[in-house]
Amino acid sequence: MPVNLPTLKPEQLLPVSGVTLGIAEANIKKPGRKDLLVIVLAEGARVAGSFTQNRFCAAPVLVAQAHLAQQRAIKALVVNTGNANAGTGEVGLERAQQTCAEAARLLGCDASQVLPFSTGVIMEPLPIDKIVAGLPAAVADLREDNWFNAAHAIMTTDIVPKAMSKRIELGGASVTITGIAKGSGMIRPNMATMLGYIATNAKVAQPLLEAMLRYAVDRSFNRITVDGDTSTNDACMLIASGHAVMEEITDSSSHEFIALQAAVTEVAAFLAQAIVRDGEGATKFITVQVEGGATEDECSKVAYAIAHSPLIKTAFFASDPNLGRILAAIGYAGIMDLDVSRIRLYLGDVLVAENGGRAASYQETEGQRVMKEPEILVRVVLNRGGAETTVWTCDFSYDYVKINAEYRS
Amino acid sequence: MPVNLPTLKPEQLLPVSGVTLGIAEANIKKPGRKDLLVIVLAEGARVAGSFTQNRFCAAPVLVAQAHLAQQRAIKALVVNTGNANAGTGEVGLERAQQTCAEAARLLGCDASQVLPFSTGVIMEPLPIDKIVAGLPAAVADLREDNWFNAAHAIMTTDIVPKAMSKRIELGGASVTITGIAKGSGMIRPNMATMLGYIATNAKVAQPLLEAMLRYAVDRSFNRITVDGDTSTNDACMLIASGHAVMEEITDSSSHEFIALQAAVTEVAAFLAQAIVRDGEGATKFITVQVEGGATEDECSKVAYAIAHSPLIKTAFFASDPNLGRILAAIGYAGIMDLDVSRIRLYLGDVLVAENGGRAASYQETEGQRVMKEPEILVRVVLNRGGAETTVWTCDFSYDYVKINAEYRS
Repeated sequence: MPVNLPTLKPEQLLPVSGVTLGIAEANIKKPGRKDLLVIVLAEGARVAGSFTQNRFCAAPVLVAQAHLAQQRAIKALVVNTGNANAGTGEVGLERAQQTCAEAARLLGCDASQVLPFSTGVIMEPLPIDKIVAGLPAAVADLREDNWFNAAHAIMTTDIVPKAMSKRIELGGASVTITGIAKGSGMIRPNMATMLGYIATNAKVAQPLLEAMLRYAVDRSFNRITVDGDTSTNDACMLIASGHAVMEEITDSSSHEFIALQAAVTEVAAFLAQAIVRDGEGATKFITVQVEGGATEDECSKVAYAIAHSPLIKTAFFASDPNLGRILAAIGYAGIMDLDVSRIRLYLGDVLVAENGGRAASYQETEGQRVMKEPEILVRVVLNRGGAETTVWTCDFSYDYVKINAEYRS
Repeated sequence: MPVNLPTLKPEQLLPVSGVTLGIAEANIKKPGRKDLLVIVLAEGARVAGSFTQNRFCAAPVLVAQAHLAQQRAIKALVVNTGNANAGTGEVGLERAQQTCAEAARLLGCDASQVLPFSTGVIMEPLPIDKIVAGLPAAVADLREDNWFNAAHAIMTTDIVPKAMSKRIELGGASVTITGIAKGSGMIRPNMATMLGYIATNAKVAQPLLEAMLRYAVDRSFNRITVDGDTSTNDACMLIASGHAVMEEITDSSSHEFIALQAAVTEVAAFLAQAIVRDGEGATKFITVQVEGGATEDECSKVAYAIAHSPLIKTAFFASDPNLGRILAAIGYAGIMDLDVSRIRLYLGDVLVAENGGRAASYQETEGQRVMKEPEILVRVVLNRGGAETTVWTCDFSYDYVKINAEYRS
């Protein structure tokens, strides 16, 4: 079960004025589950997108990027689960475009004003007929208070839906931010969410919306890893409907921009951490904090070496303070002039290693105590400079193997 | 159980004239098992070493490197299992030196003529008293026909011992090569063997012996990965006793050098592949062959992205041809200008993907057939140039998690 992720209740999610959502059962992979989501944006809404760095990126990613690049007003987003439409060649591109064309026909706009998204099995043909057949029901279901169902409709191997709302005051106006995300395997930075949609009713100029999304993603979805595999389909979209009664935010040094950016980042970080808490087979939520690095890049190398090591992740699963494995990962992270005698390693508040070896004060019972907790902080102090970074990950359990050995069956 | 690794029989291993081995039970981690090995070299033997690139490298690695650097004749190697003497700071260095000093006292040489090696749990103090107490029994056991017991004495989580002998004719002389290795977890290139010892009675000049070891290691131990974790203790040693009745090999373009190098590489590759076949929890032996790359480095990136992906490794465990996961790994391997439409992916002899998607000729039953075999070839043709590389790995099973969650208990 997900690690410390409270059950989502419909009333926790606030509608965002100018953004409606509709869900349908399109039978894409299995019958009897909601697997198609349409998000429709009112006139004047703006959209920023961040996408996977995978070179084998999925057809819908290529189409969504191309449509965003045309800088026409985006009218709708269409999301299906059960099939990733990735590794599907020319036919995959055609089907992503067909999805847009059909949604455009139903909504009375141009196909280039629709962004397609897919998640699920890779290298299977997208069942376009089922999507076309399912779209009218999704459009008929469109309403503002549909985020709870939308969070469910984008799930694949997720055990629980992930969503969060937040309300802030901005220059007298009440501004809402609501976000949903999915993902629990094939999760690693460079747009790691698989899919995330965050909407606000704030009025934000397009370049500032894009900057705000980059800022939020760098501190949330790009800081998580479950298994080190970067998906072909990752995408995170930030929508600003502009329905709030306020001046448009056009100055990135204004109080309003900074406050909204902080709130969007908070929602994004909650969603990103929720993905790790619901990581495939996860029983522990682990924060890896590396500080005192010469550069942020080298802190990242150390943090991901720890967060990706199957040996460390299985030791966390077993609550075994086999902490030498962490020293080994620090050692192979790729800092060639690393002076290991300067490093301090903490597990929670317990000093584990210093001077190149186990700390004299360290007691195995103390390490054991921290390892048994469901939330664990691994803190590495490199003592080489002032840079730092934080990465969130989970442990590696029998269930990870089970889920991924049986995913398609 | 190990994948296609025939049971080792004592008579398969040939003694190497000028190299004696002695084993003892020193009770380092558990009582009742052989855990201490001494290898003694006759006058005139030469030794070349290759060591881990891990910055947190173990105390014995540092001491062995320092002793080799002095260029005095090496008289003995001492190997213990059950404790890695890594992440042990100054005390660890002292204890590695004490090990050498005690062996030197028993053998009548200088401590700097002894090379120490340790493998086992990291960040636990080396029980030096047990090693000192065990050394006399190991020295009393010294004999040339002791390779079979030596292969057992260096095991940790290995299920089976790994060893191979080969005999070749070199300029009329009969030359023997015998090697042993251990390792099954924390295995990844940059000296991935954990421990390997290969000896020959050939006469080889020191610089040529070192070149020969680099050549062999680059084509064997540096091409394998089990879990992507580079150990703190990896070391591979090549010993040439010089006892064969032959001219010393001093020319790297000579027939003798090339023939001996090929034989040493064959032994090293067998041992490296044996480590993967006995990889922790392994049920499949997987060869990842990447060809048509612009550089060998980019072929390596693709090969290791595939070989390290937990999603791919669990799919192999399940015999599930979920091959989109391989496309995803190729896509995130880090080739930024990759044209995915030019790639061809084969599973064994079956063409799986081309033109950016599933091959028209591909039948799932064909993929399934290959996936069920215990030995699988994954072949990626990048169509960007003439470089290629091969990496060997294994699948990821419940037992990998079990072994590593319970390793210390």
